[in-house]
Amino acid sequence: MADSQLAYRLGMLLAKEGWVVLSGGSNRGVMDAVSRGAKDGNGVTVGIRPGIDATNTSDAVDIAVFTGLGQGRNNINILTSDVVIACGHVEAGTLSEIALALKATKSVILLNPDRTTFDLLNRIGGSLLGAVDTPEEAVQKVRQLLS
Amino acid sequence: MADSQLAYRLGMLLAKEGWVVLSGGSNRGVMDAVSRGAKDGNGVTVGIRPGIDATNTSDAVDIAVFTGLGQGRNNINILTSDVVIACGHVEAGTLSEIALALKATKSVILLNPDRTTFDLLNRIGGSLLGAVDTPEEAVQKVRQLLS
Amino acid sequence: MADSQLAYRLGMLLAKEGWVVLSGGSNRGVMDAVSRGAKDGNGVTVGIRPGIDATNTSDAVDIAVFTGLGQGRNNINILTSDVVIACGHVEAGTLSEIALALKATKSVILLNPDRTTFDLLNRIGGSLLGAVDTPEEAVQKVRQLLS
Amino acid sequence: MADSQLAYRLGMLLAKEGWVVLSGGSNRGVMDAVSRGAKDGNGVTVGIRPGIDATNTSDAVDIAVFTGLGQGRNNINILTSDVVIACGHVEAGTLSEIALALKATKSVILLNPDRTTFDLLNRIGGSLLGAVDTPEEAVQKVRQLLS
Repeated sequence: MADSQLAYRLGMLLAKEGWVVLSGGSNRGVMDAVSRGAKDGNGVTVGIRPGIDATNTSDAVDIAVFTGLGQGRNNINILTSDVVIACGHVEAGTLSEIALALKATKSVILLNPDRTTFDLLNRIGGSLLGAVDTPEEAVQKVRQLLS
Repeated sequence: MADSQLAYRLGMLLAKEGWVVLSGGSNRGVMDAVSRGAKDGNGVTVGIRPGIDATNTSDAVDIAVFTGLGQGRNNINILTSDVVIACGHVEAGTLSEIALALKATKSVILLNPDRTTFDLLNRIGGSLLGAVDTPEEAVQKVRQLLS
Repeated sequence: MADSQLAYRLGMLLAKEGWVVLSGGSNRGVMDAVSRGAKDGNGVTVGIRPGIDATNTSDAVDIAVFTGLGQGRNNINILTSDVVIACGHVEAGTLSEIALALKATKSVILLNPDRTTFDLLNRIGGSLLGAVDTPEEAVQKVRQLLS
Repeated sequence: MADSQLAYRLGMLLAKEGWVVLSGGSNRGVMDAVSRGAKDGNGVTVGIRPGIDATNTSDAVDIAVFTGLGQGRNNINILTSDVVIACGHVEAGTLSEIALALKATKSVILLNPDRTTFDLLNRIGGSLLGAVDTPEEAVQKVRQLLS
């Protein structure tokens, strides 16, 4: 399953649990997909934007917060979340968020990570880090973490 | 009318218009009052918090964003708002937000300001600045600004 | 004396005291002037920039810090300073910094303020606020505050 | 060689090149060591601090910038640097800085990294990423990058 399909399904499942789905709020890629899934699951979506206005904000975001911080907003995503889920292939922006989450001792779930990513983050994150193969397992893991 | 009563009534009226009510999200003073009013008006409330967790967050806030920025969060309040309303007596924190709003060319409405505050801000803000006496007039002014 | 002349003279005098001169680091207006004065007084200058690179940075700034925070950087200017001096005519950006300084209980000196500005800030700032007519008096006041 | 010894030596060598040495400015670990080395090499040191005052700031820091941003300050470290060097064992805070650096397309040099860290970052960073075994090689690499 492509990352954006994974993200769409994850968003829908999170929304159905009644959880608010927060992302970076972009109108592209996994951020857009997770927000769309959450809306189709009748959920509430929050987008923490790097810019000062609505440019490139997904229209599936209900509450868009304009930080004007650029990538400095990544730490807000983390601090505001109860659990962090990284969806699919990890690039630089996502990696910074995972690292900031571990620094803030937040639980991080890697959904369908590659081996190298998992190995490094497992060394750094220890018991804060989990990995799952499917959106369904991610939701189950969140449920455990919040209980 | 005391500032917190003004804020409560303002929050309720804003909510009844279907507008999201964003504040600093504190559990005290006008921030708490405007959020309570908005909830009693069946609205949605957002709180942009200075800290890294829920400490001192109003329970009338639906979406609490934990920025970890201290007063650096004030600029986010401004950037995220369509119109800024300063309620009653202006102290340092509020003054910084009004100034940041004018810097970002956002419209600012002073609700029941004292004379000195109005004079200074009127000089700096020009046509971006308005002043009203009641929450009802504030709502009317926002309606004009958004139309 | 024009504001930029005041700022140049202030920068030179501060530098001669051996104090680091911090500003927003722009290559225009009072920010540029105070940095130039400080360099001509053999001082060290710091510029806290809103952007992500050297665009519009004064070449009289020794240490330019690129925050990428936009006006969110104003709070850093304040937190990093021992004493804040506002030079001449106060506009929105400067007003936000004065307000943030008072919020952070930092001493603020208004150099040659207009009457309305002084009246408002005096009400909000109380004993944290001082006003002087010349750069020489500003330096004397800083000396008192740091002693 | 222990990481703090590596960092001390690195700071000294960077300072001898005439480069400003910027770090997170803590009074512990590699941040303290690199600043001490730079001072012993007659360099200038900058520390970008997470807090609002001098608490836990290394006294080998010349220019301490108090951001009040917590880990949100990590992006400022990156944006302000021409080249980023990660010294020794990578933990969560450093990993977030490396990731933010790659996101900002800054060159990153890993000094003496473990295999897993290098493999992951090499995949994400591509040609932006380099790895070296000694402070001497790090300096040589910076020289190439700046030329």
